[in-house]
Order: sequence, then C-alpha cells, then structure tokens
Amino acid sequence: MKPYKEMTREELLAEKAAGEARYQALKAKGLKLDMSRGKPSKAQLDLSNGMMDCLNSDSDMTCESGVDCRNYGIMDGIPEARRLLADMSEVPEKDILIYGNSSLNVMFDTVARAMSMGVCGHTPWGLLEKVKFLCPVPGYDRHFGITEFFGIEMINVPLLPTGPDMDMVEQLVANDPLIKGIWCVPKYSNPTGISYSDETVLRFAHLKPAAPDFRIFWDNAYSIHHLYDDDQDVILELLTEAKKAGNEDIVYKFISTSKVTFPGSGIAAFAASEANLADARRALFYQTIGHDKLNQLRHVRFFKDMDGIREHMKKQAAILRPKFEAVTEGLERELGGLEIGSWTKPKGGYFISFDALDGCAKKIVAKAKEAGVTMTGAGATYPYGKDPKDSNIRIAPSFPTPEELTAATEIFVLSVKLVSLEKYLTVK
Amino acid sequence: MKPYKEMTREELLAEKAAGEARYQALKAKGLKLDMSRGKPSKAQLDLSNGMMDCLNSDSDMTCESGVDCRNYGIMDGIPEARRLLADMSEVPEKDILIYGNSSLNVMFDTVARAMSMGVCGHTPWGLLEKVKFLCPVPGYDRHFGITEFFGIEMINVPLLPTGPDMDMVEQLVANDPLIKGIWCVPKYSNPTGISYSDETVLRFAHLKPAAPDFRIFWDNAYSIHHLYDDDQDVILELLTEAKKAGNEDIVYKFISTSKVTFPGSGIAAFAASEANLADARRALFYQTIGHDKLNQLRHVRFFKDMDGIREHMKKQAAILRPKFEAVTEGLERELGGLEIGSWTKPKGGYFISFDALDGCAKKIVAKAKEAGVTMTGAGATYPYGKDPKDSNIRIAPSFPTPEELTAATEIFVLSVKLVSLEKYLTVK
Repeated sequence: MKPYKEMTREELLAEKAAGEARYQALKAKGLKLDMSRGKPSKAQLDLSNGMMDCLNSDSDMTCESGVDCRNYGIMDGIPEARRLLADMSEVPEKDILIYGNSSLNVMFDTVARAMSMGVCGHTPWGLLEKVKFLCPVPGYDRHFGITEFFGIEMINVPLLPTGPDMDMVEQLVANDPLIKGIWCVPKYSNPTGISYSDETVLRFAHLKPAAPDFRIFWDNAYSIHHLYDDDQDVILELLTEAKKAGNEDIVYKFISTSKVTFPGSGIAAFAASEANLADARRALFYQTIGHDKLNQLRHVRFFKDMDGIREHMKKQAAILRPKFEAVTEGLERELGGLEIGSWTKPKGGYFISFDALDGCAKKIVAKAKEAGVTMTGAGATYPYGKDPKDSNIRIAPSFPTPEELTAATEIFVLSVKLVSLEKYLTVK
Repeated sequence: MKPYKEMTREELLAEKAAGEARYQALKAKGLKLDMSRGKPSKAQLDLSNGMMDCLNSDSDMTCESGVDCRNYGIMDGIPEARRLLADMSEVPEKDILIYGNSSLNVMFDTVARAMSMGVCGHTPWGLLEKVKFLCPVPGYDRHFGITEFFGIEMINVPLLPTGPDMDMVEQLVANDPLIKGIWCVPKYSNPTGISYSDETVLRFAHLKPAAPDFRIFWDNAYSIHHLYDDDQDVILELLTEAKKAGNEDIVYKFISTSKVTFPGSGIAAFAASEANLADARRALFYQTIGHDKLNQLRHVRFFKDMDGIREHMKKQAAILRPKFEAVTEGLERELGGLEIGSWTKPKGGYFISFDALDGCAKKIVAKAKEAGVTMTGAGATYPYGKDPKDSNIRIAPSFPTPEELTAATEIFVLSVKLVSLEKYLTVK
C-alpha cells in the first residue's frame, strides 16, 4: 500500500468509498466493545479463583510473627506478605510497608500527606504559593488526576523510547524548587509500553533537584507483567541505585497485585528509604491500626513465594499475548505503509499506544464510538486531558474476548483511515 | 466497709498491710494480662469464621448490579453491601458509601481532605491560621490522635451521662468560626459506655455553628453492640433529625464491622447528606477505582441481612456480658463503699470507665503494670494524653479470658486501694 500522502485525490476518494462501506457494515452490527480501560478479562480473573480457597473456617489464621490475622494490629503488614511484595519489588523486606487494596490509593494518600503535612519535616505543599509536578507524556490518566485534584501544576515532559527526556528533567528540577515530583511508570509504561533504559534509571538515581522534598513517584505497576517468556524487559532497581548514589530519599516506590490477582481486592505496597518509611509511618499510626491482614495471608498462601507469582504471570501472559498480537497484527495489516499512524509493540504491560496524524485523535475515538467501540478518551494520556497535538490514543486490549478484539480492531483501523482520509481530502 | 476518708491512720495502715500482702502474692505469680485495648477475644473472632467459607473458587462473585466483584469498579460499594450497612446505620441506602476496611481510616481521610481541600468548597483548613475541634472527655484516644496529628487545637468538653455538655457545645460553636468539628461516640461511648439522650441528639441536629464547614464526626462504633437482650440503649438517628431540622450537612456519620466480624478486615462506611457525599466522591474518584468488593460480598453472604447481624451480635454479647460483669462485680465487691473510685456499668460497647481519686490514675496504672496487668495509659482518654485531674482510667474487658479477667481485676482493685491509701496516709 502506498502512503496516503502520495495518493491522488481520486485514489483517496476510492479508498474512502471502500472504507466507508466496510465501516457502515460493521456499524450495522450494533456491536458494543470496550478497549478503554486496563481491566483484566474474566479468563485472567479465573486464574486467581483458587485464592478464595486459601482461607476457610478451619484455617490457622496466625501469621509468622504469631499474631492472629483476624484481629487488630501489625501496621507494617504481616512479615510473610512484606517478604513476598519485597521480592516482587526487588527491595529488602525492611524497605517495604504493606498497605490496603490499591496502590492508586497509596499514591493519593502520599500526595495528600505531602499537601497537608509536608515531606519529612519540610513545609506542607499546601502552604506553598505553587507546587509543580513533571508528567512524562503520554502517561497514566489517574496519576495526572491525583495531581490535578490537589491543584498541582503539571508540566509535560516527552516520554522517549528510553524513558522521560532526562536532559529536560534534570534541567527543570535543578532550577525550580517548586517542582516537587515526577510521575513514572518505569516498566512497560502506560500507555506506550516502553521500559526505562539503564541510563535513565541511573540519571534518576543521581538526580539533584533544587527542592529537598522532591520525590520520584515510581509506579512499578507492570514490573512482572511480561507478554513473552524469552523476550522480557529488565530495568535497574531504582532504590538500590539511589542508595549507591547516597540519594535514597528521592524515591517513592509503589507496587500492587491489582493486575496479578483481583483489582481492587489485591494488596498494595510502598517501598522507600528508612527516612521516607518513618515519615509514612508517622501518618499511618493515626490513619489505621493495620490493613487487611487476612487478605495479605490469602495472597501469601496462594502464591507461597515469588516463583509462585512468576508461574501465575506466565498464565496471565498466555491469555494476554494473543490479544496484543491480534491488535498489532490488525494495525500492521490495515495501516502498514499508509503513514497515517504509528504504534508501539510492547513486550509487556496493559496497553498499546497509537499516534494518529495531528488533530485526528478525538475524531478517531468519536468515529470508533459511533460504530460501538469505546476507546480511552483522546487526550486522557496527557495532563488536564489536553494532548497538544490531538494525536495519541491508548488501546487497552485486555478485557475483550479475542473475537471481540478482532472486530474492535477492525472498527478502530477503519476509523483511523476515514478520519485521516478526511484530513487529506480537505487539502487536496 | 466504711469510706477510707473516714478511717483513722491506724485503720488505713491495717488496710494497707492487708492489701500489700495480697498484691505481692499476685505479683509473685508473674502474670501477663492485658486490659488496655478494645480487642475482641479469640472466642468472638471464631464466631465469624464462617465468613471465610462464603466465597470459594466455585462461587458466583457477581454482585446484584451484575458487576464481577473480582474486577475494577463500583466506587460507592456494591448495592447489597450499601443496603446492609445502611440498615445497620439506620439511614437510606442512597445516603451511604462503602469504604475500605476501617472507619478510623475513613475519619483520618475525611480530616485530611478537609485540611488540604476544604469542606464543600470552603477554605481548606490547612490554610487557616488555626482550626479547633471540640472533644468530649473522657473520649477515644484515636480520635484525638487524628486531630493532634493535623495540628488541630482540641478543646475539652465534659461528657455527661446524657452526652456532651450541650450548653457548652452550643455556646462555643456559635461564637468561634475556627471550631470546625466535634468528635462523638453517641452510643455506648468510649470509654464511659453512656448513650446520648434524645435531647442531646436533637440539640446536635439543630446546632447552629458560626463555621459553615463545621461537622459533627458521629462515630457510631458501637451502634449494635448491646450486652443485654432486654435492656438496650436506643438513640435517635442524627442524620434523620438533622434533615428534619434542615441542617443535614452538619453530620458525618461513620460505621464499620470492625467489632462485628474481623477488626482490620471488616468493611467501613460513611453516611451523610447528598452534598457531603458529593464532596466525598469528588476525592474518592481520584483516590480509588473501588474498594474491596469481594470483602463486601463476603460480609453480605455471611449475614444476609440485618437480622443476621443482630443474631450474630447476640452471640458476641453472650461472650462479652460475663466479662463486663466480672469486672463490675469485682469493682463493687472490693471497692464498694470505700469512696476511692467510681465506675460505669455500661449496657453495651467495649469499655468500663473508672474514675479514681484526683491525682491517682497514673500511679494506679503503673502499680497494676508492676504486677503484670497492662491498662490503657492514664490520660489516654483526654486530648494530648492530659487528664487535668489525673483521674480517669479506661478498662477494656473484651480480650482476656474470664479467668484472666478475674485475676486482672483483682490486681487492678488492689492497685486502686494501695495508691488511694498512699494518698490518704500522706495527709493523715
């Protein structure tokens, strides 16, 4: 296929007529498909059903330290759960605290605490004239939502194939003490699927911000969420590298089992330096007497250890891999060579990122919606929902069945074609 | 027995010698007993073990609205859990949101939100020169801990047998716009066990504070925690009364199943007016995608409905009642008529409140500790841990076995006697 931009007006019109016919035929089916959110499918959830059998009325519900998990106590999390999540996070057990059911909640609470109480004794952010965060784009809409909610000004930083543009990050944080944080999804990033290079992680570990209370919000949401057994991204562990650099207080690390077991009913954790954990504990002491230890115990009994989690994630991958491939193959087959879009082929995570021609993303999402396919709202991958180029679209292939996904991808590529053709036809 | 204050020095010395001998004999046993926290006992926890069988790998884990509880979603809580907790809270289902595992956490988050974001559009408390809270005393140490953590100034208000001194409450809130809240445990109060009178609830419902963002933090922790079948406290439902008074925004109501099923692994809820729920949802939307719906489902399947909860609470009462009676009978038998202390005989809740002679509470707690009995720290029932009279001691009879409780009560009453004797002997 030759690129649209090289086609004559007649060729474009013929392409449009063919696309329109196929689009209308699919639209007439009245489908209702959803590629909008990174939700596990039913088949993936079924993989964890055995966890519901791990505790029953006859179970010993005592944890390793001898505490009855049915009662109050153990603010830090039960030892065996700390060890399991520490292994998952590649940090020592002493560097991690187990929280409630979701890492999003931990991130929200962490920003909330910084706003009202400050970070490690520094002025509460809420008392400063302004607070700013760096936001690698495209990124995760719920990260941006938290900082927007608290009135924090967000500054876009391009996300390159190696991670955030570190020249820009270093320059910005070195000169502006009001920049207090950066949102990062270092592995199988949401939505592009890229993983940070060693150089990027090392530059983060050595970062010297003007603000002493600057923190890297390192959301390791997809750390073990590989699609392939034999081709996996490996990234350096940031807390370890920051310690080596004598800079360990700069890291807030978040992790959860949301996309390992049951989203919303998993366990979440926070890993950080001794000083940061002490700071977190000062609030935790008043916030809770202890998180859900029975759910912690349930997770540990189900997985036993990190090998158990790895085996489980292979089963998850076996379900997700064909879905990712169905989408990327559909994109390649229908859009390859047309030069009206580019997309990522992630080796893990939950998303494929699609870049349309400038000014086309909103129209493509609307067009797909018209034929029954819900995509993440165009712009959602940028702070304030504003994609300056109106180009990026996040594709979430996990939830639909493979058959639904094939139909959804077809509608999506046709929407891309028709909106792009419209753009070229207005100028030719 | 005649009152100590009427005894001669010789009589007091004889009483001291007898008490000292008994105390030393008990101390020599090297006991390790704990009456410090309101923790359910193992036998109470066992009552809820069946909940662990309610969901297993073959269960249908879909809630009434058709959503798979294993996946993301339903920020407000599943309908059947909202209905159950609404019944427990005596409010309509639409007035309640289900949160995570603990109401303490919800209260902390609610104050945190007010600090950083304000209440219903008003200035964030964190930006005000000062924020004050009214604290009925004696009261719950963890309430006072939250307001202390956020630097909120706490003002003591006497807790009378009918509830907080409402003349004082009305006068204070009407004249000081910096007073933003009051901590209340309206039923089987912690620690005195009293329940608010109808007049008190009605005066709260009609309260007219100077601050438009003043809220009553109504912690209904013991709403269904009766000790007796035939002699139960009933209080007016505040949100209903506040609605009648056109004053519904003044109420924040908190409830949880912590002392119904498993503390820390229960479900918590927040009930309030439409405007207050909208305010809470604005933050919730960014804080979470949904709380633990599987745990909500587990609770609903275990109890089925409010009748199920009531039957369950009768079993709890059967375990708790003899413990409360063992303590109050021990106090009556050993201290009756001596006029060196007074105590409450609650009909529900988790605590007995003991008032010693002024200046004796700390010494009594230390004396009991020396013989192996841990009590809640003297002063803990007051803001900043400062009981101005050093008189109040909270007794928590739930956790020890009945045998342990008899021994612990004996050590406690001997500690009261010896410390009181010391006080009288220094002046005689």
